[in-house]
Amino acid sequence: MTAAATFVDEKLLEKVPRWRNYLAAKLGFRNHWYPILFSRDVDEGQVVKAKVLGENILLKRVDGKVHALKDRCIHRGVQLSDKIECYTKNTITCWYHGFTYKWDTGQVCDIIAVPNSPVIGTRGVKRYPVEEVKNVIFVFVGDEDFETPALVTDVPPFFLDDDMHIEGYAYVIDSNWRVACENGFDALHIYIHRESPLVPNTQRSLPLGNVRREFKHVFLEAEGGPKGLGDATVDNVMTYEGRVEGKVVVRGTKMHATPEEAKEKRTTGTFMCLPGVLRVDNFPYKGLTQFEWYVPITEDSHLYFITLGKRCQSDEERRDFSHEFWHRWKAVSLEGFNGQDVQARLSLQKFYAKDEHWLEETLIREDKALVMWRELCHRHGRALQLPKHLA
Amino acid sequence: MTAAATFVDEKLLEKVPRWRNYLAAKLGFRNHWYPILFSRDVDEGQVVKAKVLGENILLKRVDGKVHALKDRCIHRGVQLSDKIECYTKNTITCWYHGFTYKWDTGQVCDIIAVPNSPVIGTRGVKRYPVEEVKNVIFVFVGDEDFETPALVTDVPPFFLDDDMHIEGYAYVIDSNWRVACENGFDALHIYIHRESPLVPNTQRSLPLGNVRREFKHVFLEAEGGPKGLGDATVDNVMTYEGRVEGKVVVRGTKMHATPEEAKEKRTTGTFMCLPGVLRVDNFPYKGLTQFEWYVPITEDSHLYFITLGKRCQSDEERRDFSHEFWHRWKAVSLEGFNGQDVQARLSLQKFYAKDEHWLEETLIREDKALVMWRELCHRHGRALQLPKHLA
Amino acid sequence: MTAAATFVDEKLLEKVPRWRNYLAAKLGFRNHWYPILFSRDVDEGQVVKAKVLGENILLKRVDGKVHALKDRCIHRGVQLSDKIECYTKNTITCWYHGFTYKWDTGQVCDIIAVPNSPVIGTRGVKRYPVEEVKNVIFVFVGDEDFETPALVTDVPPFFLDDDMHIEGYAYVIDSNWRVACENGFDALHIYIHRESPLVPNTQRSLPLGNVRREFKHVFLEAEGGPKGLGDATVDNVMTYEGRVEGKVVVRGTKMHATPEEAKEKRTTGTFMCLPGVLRVDNFPYKGLTQFEWYVPITEDSHLYFITLGKRCQSDEERRDFSHEFWHRWKAVSLEGFNGQDVQARLSLQKFYAKDEHWLEETLIREDKALVMWRELCHRHGRALQLPKHLA
Repeated sequence: MTAAATFVDEKLLEKVPRWRNYLAAKLGFRNHWYPILFSRDVDEGQVVKAKVLGENILLKRVDGKVHALKDRCIHRGVQLSDKIECYTKNTITCWYHGFTYKWDTGQVCDIIAVPNSPVIGTRGVKRYPVEEVKNVIFVFVGDEDFETPALVTDVPPFFLDDDMHIEGYAYVIDSNWRVACENGFDALHIYIHRESPLVPNTQRSLPLGNVRREFKHVFLEAEGGPKGLGDATVDNVMTYEGRVEGKVVVRGTKMHATPEEAKEKRTTGTFMCLPGVLRVDNFPYKGLTQFEWYVPITEDSHLYFITLGKRCQSDEERRDFSHEFWHRWKAVSLEGFNGQDVQARLSLQKFYAKDEHWLEETLIREDKALVMWRELCHRHGRALQLPKHLA
Repeated sequence: MTAAATFVDEKLLEKVPRWRNYLAAKLGFRNHWYPILFSRDVDEGQVVKAKVLGENILLKRVDGKVHALKDRCIHRGVQLSDKIECYTKNTITCWYHGFTYKWDTGQVCDIIAVPNSPVIGTRGVKRYPVEEVKNVIFVFVGDEDFETPALVTDVPPFFLDDDMHIEGYAYVIDSNWRVACENGFDALHIYIHRESPLVPNTQRSLPLGNVRREFKHVFLEAEGGPKGLGDATVDNVMTYEGRVEGKVVVRGTKMHATPEEAKEKRTTGTFMCLPGVLRVDNFPYKGLTQFEWYVPITEDSHLYFITLGKRCQSDEERRDFSHEFWHRWKAVSLEGFNGQDVQARLSLQKFYAKDEHWLEETLIREDKALVMWRELCHRHGRALQLPKHLA
Repeated sequence: MTAAATFVDEKLLEKVPRWRNYLAAKLGFRNHWYPILFSRDVDEGQVVKAKVLGENILLKRVDGKVHALKDRCIHRGVQLSDKIECYTKNTITCWYHGFTYKWDTGQVCDIIAVPNSPVIGTRGVKRYPVEEVKNVIFVFVGDEDFETPALVTDVPPFFLDDDMHIEGYAYVIDSNWRVACENGFDALHIYIHRESPLVPNTQRSLPLGNVRREFKHVFLEAEGGPKGLGDATVDNVMTYEGRVEGKVVVRGTKMHATPEEAKEKRTTGTFMCLPGVLRVDNFPYKGLTQFEWYVPITEDSHLYFITLGKRCQSDEERRDFSHEFWHRWKAVSLEGFNGQDVQARLSLQKFYAKDEHWLEETLIREDKALVMWRELCHRHGRALQLPKHLA
C-alpha cells in the first residue's frame, strides 16, 4: 500500500480550514527543534538511539560534541543500530556491507567490502543539526534544504536565560502529542488534580475551575522568536466549591485570603508555543517555572519531556535546586501531579485517535484558548511531517 | 482515515441483492432491542459498563429502574467509565472537567469547573431506552428520532408470556454475530453434537443429520410482531448412521421407537427472528424452551446471551426450575452442548471474517433455511449499524 | 474490505517496469514447485498441516504416497484441521457437517449428515500435486487448469542427480522470501560472516568482500530446465583487509597461498533460480553443495528450507555424511553461519516490508547480480500469487 499524501483524510481537513494543518499534523510539525535526550544520557563515545516524528535517529558524542545521523544505511535500508560498529571515533560502519559514515557530515568515507566504490565521498546519510544547551540535547528535524532557524525560535521565553538553571526528566506516553498539548494548556482540567499530593506538600491553593473573566491571551508571533500564546491566570474567576443539583459535593483547596496572597500561592500564567511546549509560571512552587515538551514519536506516542527551571546565581543554589528536584519535585509534582495529566491524555487518546472524532467534540466558551492554539499552529507550523518522511 | 460508508465493500454488496443488508450488517441492525445484562448484574446504585453494536454504554439502577447513557462525555469525548464519579443518586459527573449528566434524561445539569455555562440544561448525552423484563435488561440501540417500537417486536413468540419463567447466562464469543445465527439455525450442524454430555444425561435421541422432506418454513412478517422464520423439525428425515465409502463409521443416538415417542425425545422446532435470536422448542428437554441471542459487540465478537424458559404456575415450580438450571442445564447443556456450537463459530469466523468469503461458500439444498434467514434480515432489519454510529 | 488486485500498489509497480512482477510477487510466484516438509515429517497415516504462499494445506501419507488437499471445506469454509476426522484410510471428513473428501482426488465421496446429496461425486476440494524425492516433499502450488511442469524445472541443476545424497533441516523466518533470496545471492554480504564458527572449524578462507572483476553471470533460461542465474566466484577480487580512514580495522581470513589452492578453500560458485532457491558450490566444505529454498508462507514469513548435498556412491558414504550433517554442519554451518544470514533478513525486513522502500535503496555497481535476479524473476515467474488466491 502506498502511503497517502497526509496521515489524515483530506475530506476531514477541509472541514476545519482555520486549523487544518493542526489536524493534519498527526506526527508533528517538521522543520522545528525538539528536545530528545538529556546531556547525561549520552556519554563521550556512547551511541544512543532515539525516535522523533517517526524518524529513527542515532546519536554519538565525539570529543564532547553530539552528532545525529539517520539510523538507516543508504544502501539496503537496514538500521545501523541493529549492530553498532564504530571502528574509529568519528565514524560508524554498517554491520551489513561495511558502508562507513562520518558522524560530523554523514558522508560515506569507506565501504569495507568494496574499497574503491565511487559512492565513497559522494553520497551520505542524513545528518540532523544538534544543539546542546541547559543539559538538554535538541535536534532539528527538518528538510535538508531548509535553513536551520535559531533554537530560540522554538523554546518559550526565559528557558534560555543565562541564570535559568534546568533540571528534568522524560518518559514515553501512549498518546498523540496534540492531546498532550491540549490537556496541558486547558485551564479547566485542574479539576483532576484536586487530590494531588502536590497540594498538601506545598500548602498552595488549587481551585476546581478556573474561568477566564475575558480572553486576555497574548499571541507571540513576531519574527525571530517563538510562536506562542500566553495566558495570565491571576485575574481568572476561581471555583472552589463544586455543586451538583445545588449541593456542594466536592471542594478545592484555598490557602490564600487576598488577591495579593493568591499570587504567592498559585500559578501566575501559562504560555504555549510551537512545536508543542508549555511553560507554567510559578509552578510547582513560587519561583519555579515548568517547561514541558510533548515530542511526537509515533502517531500514538510522545516523549513527555518535563523540565523545571529556577533562576540561580551560584553553584550552591544550583546544587540545592538539583537536590530539591530529584528528592522533592520528581515524586510530588512530576509523578504525583503530572501523572494525573498522563491519565487524562490516555483517556483522550481513545477518542482522538480516530481522526473524525476531532469534529465531534463539544467545545465550550472556556475552551477558546485551545482553538486559538490550534489556529496558531495552523499559521506557524513550519511544515507538516508526512508519510513520505518516514519512507 | 475516514470511515467508509458501510463496513463492507460496495462491490461485494452488489453481488447479493437479495441479502445485501445482511452482508452489510457486520455490526448488526440498528433500531432494535438487545438484551445485554441480567437483572442480577445491576444492583441498586451500581454503575455497569457494556458494549453493544460497537457503542459503549453505561448503566445504573436508580430507585429500582435501570437507566442507560452513552459512555462518552460530550465535551472532549472521554469515557465516563474511566473514573466513575456519582455525587448524587440521579447524576454522573465526568472525571475530567465535571460535566454532570442526569441518568433519567441524559441532560447536563451541572459543570463543576464552569458553574454557569450555557451548556447546562441545553445539551445532553445520548440516552438509551431500557426495558427490564423476565430478569433481562434490554436496551434499544437506535436513532434518537426513531420511534421506539414495542419490545414484543424483537423477541420470539412465547418469551414474554406471563407464565414463562426465564433463567439465563451470558458470555462473550470471538466471532461475528451472523455466523452465530447461522450455526444455530443450521439443522445439519447437529453432527457436531453427537458426543455431547447432553445425550446420555437426558436419554434423548440425537441424529447425525436432519434433512427436510420439503421446506415448510413459516415466515412471520406481520406488523406488530417479530420478523422471523420457523421450522418444524418433527417431520424431517433423521440420519442415525453415518457412512463413508459404504461403511457405517459413526452412529447417532436413537432412543425412540415411534414417531409419537420421537416428539417426546427430540426438539420439535426452531424459530429465528430479528435482531438475531433463536428459539428451540423442547430443548434441552421436553417442556423447556431455549431462547438465545447473538448480540453484536464488535465486528468479531458477540455476546452469547442464553436463556431457558419454562412455563411455571407457582413460586415452587420456579424455584425448582431455577435450581435445575444452575445445577443441571448450565453444565450439561449451556456448556456441554452449546460449547460445541461456540467452537464451530470460532472456526466459521476464520473464514467469514473476510467479507469476500461470503461469496465463496458452497451452500447445498439443505442450507435453504439459511438463505431464507439472510433474505428476511435484508427485508426487515430496521437500519444498518454504520461506521458513523461508532464515531 | 475487498482485497486489491495485487498485494502491491500499481503506482509503485509502474516505476520498475523491468522487475515489476518481482515487486508484485510479495507472496511468491504461483505455478511452481515448493519443498515444504521432509519425508520424515509425514509418517504413514499421519495428517500434517502446512502453509505455502498463504494457502493452508493438509497432507497425509496413504500407503506410502503423500497427498495434499486444500485445508478448507468447500461448504462453509472451515478448516478440516480444526478437528481432524479420518474414518477411512483414503478419506478425510469435515468435523462440521460430515463432508467427506478422498485424499487422492479431492472429490466429495460422502456427506454424513446428508447421505444423498447431489454434491457427492460432483464437487471436490482443491488437490495439490505432490512429488517426494531426495526425502523432500514438494508441492505444486498452482492453478488447477495449469499443466503441471516437471519438478526439474524448479530445482537447481545437480539436486536431482542420482548420486546426490541430501540431508536437510527447515524452520520459519519472519521475513519476506525476497529479502532472503537477495541476502543469499549477494556476494558482498560475506562481511557479516567474518566471525562465524565455520571459519575456524573448516580452516577455510573467508574474505571481507568479494568484488567481481567483470560480470560473468550466466543466465539459464532454456526450455525444460530451471530459470536461473549463475556466478563463478573464483575469479573475483577478494578483500581481506577492511580499512576505515586509511587504517586497517578488521581482517578476513585467508588460508590459501595460490589461486589453485583457493579453489580448495573457498566456495566456487553460486546459482540462484526460480521459485527462490540458491545453490552454493563447495560450501560449507569442499565437495559439499548447499541447496536452500526460501518458501513464501505469508507476506512477512518464509520457510528457510536448507539442504546439503554430497555425491555418495555407497550406503556407508551416505551414512557417514548423514552423521556429519547432524553432528557437524547443523551446528557449525546451518546455525552458526546461516544464523547470521537470518539476522540480516530480519533487519532487511524492517525496511523492505514497506513496498515503497524498494524504490529507496541505493544499489551500487556490485549489486548488479541482484538486479539481474529481479529481472529474471520478472521474465520467468509463471504467475503471481494474488489476494484472490487466498480468498
